[in-house]
Amino acid sequence: MTEKPPLNFWFEFASTYSYPAAMRIAPLAKSRGVAVRWRPFLLGPIFKAQGWDNSPFNLYPAKGRYMWRDLERICASLDLPFVQPAQFPQNTLLAARVAIAALSEDWGEDFCRALYRAEFGEGRDLAEPQTIAAVLTSLGRDAGAMMEQARDDAVKGALRAQTEEAQRIGIFGAPAFVAADGELFWGNDRLEAALDWTLR
Amino acid sequence: MTEKPPLNFWFEFASTYSYPAAMRIAPLAKSRGVAVRWRPFLLGPIFKAQGWDNSPFNLYPAKGRYMWRDLERICASLDLPFVQPAQFPQNTLLAARVAIAALSEDWGEDFCRALYRAEFGEGRDLAEPQTIAAVLTSLGRDAGAMMEQARDDAVKGALRAQTEEAQRIGIFGAPAFVAADGELFWGNDRLEAALDWTLR
Repeated sequence: MTEKPPLNFWFEFASTYSYPAAMRIAPLAKSRGVAVRWRPFLLGPIFKAQGWDNSPFNLYPAKGRYMWRDLERICASLDLPFVQPAQFPQNTLLAARVAIAALSEDWGEDFCRALYRAEFGEGRDLAEPQTIAAVLTSLGRDAGAMMEQARDDAVKGALRAQTEEAQRIGIFGAPAFVAADGELFWGNDRLEAALDWTLR
Repeated sequence: MTEKPPLNFWFEFASTYSYPAAMRIAPLAKSRGVAVRWRPFLLGPIFKAQGWDNSPFNLYPAKGRYMWRDLERICASLDLPFVQPAQFPQNTLLAARVAIAALSEDWGEDFCRALYRAEFGEGRDLAEPQTIAAVLTSLGRDAGAMMEQARDDAVKGALRAQTEEAQRIGIFGAPAFVAADGELFWGNDRLEAALDWTLR
């Protein structure tokens, strides 16, 4: 264990660039001796406060076309599977709630990575409860029990609180990395800088 | 001289992240044997077509606060001077026209770098003709003659054509790097990937 306070990794399952970040963060953090706290949240309320009722990648088509191509290049360079999902953005409320519950156990990070792989590596739709159930089953978990747990008021409240915290500390997109001193980094391409910041 | 077709470096003097890109591109390209073609353009018409009448960094304050802090960190890491200009974004029409004229001569890239340094390294306003004249004079150029040349219809038309070309090839922000095969990279943090692409 490191003695440093952990780096907060804020992610949203609908966020495309959170996919490579989620796949990269654990080994990079481990090699630097940095602990990471995984913080799922919802971008929807934050985008809404900025006046957007959709992903900016859909609202601004030139930017969206670029993002998909850029993501494809990034995945190729990392040897990550990539399939552009037919549905974008996806409704990730259930996914985020199950993740909140799963992250209280030691397989939570594996579950988050498996969800991202299903969505952007295989093009599956996380809005479908059966997608999430299948991922749980593939990890040897009791899908029914976890889906039930995700309906707990405590889990719903924890996700709401986390989303409000994200907005309060200045997060406007995902992925975001926030150090213990509040220093904010935005985007998969700032992951290394965020890890280095925690070691200053 | 390299035998490869050059990488196109599309930049706008009002663009904050174009500052570190302009300062980095020449040595990085040289070390890889890649030629670079400097292409100033105007983001205003492109933003307008996306429904923005201002910089997205002003329209979305959380993103703007983050960008200034991020730029400050980047400049510190590169040992580049940084002063946040009082005026943002700046009217860069005259700057871009003089740059078009200057880039037909061998000191054009030095001039572009000096303008960025004045704006984001010293906080000066490029909308003021005397700022541009002072930069020209500091480079040993005849400021009056260059300002006169910038009023030529040929120069005005070249900037207009360049801005239209940027929009046509899918550029939606700056800096952007476009390879001879049309592959587009956006942002200072994609400079290395763009240079590597031209060497494939």
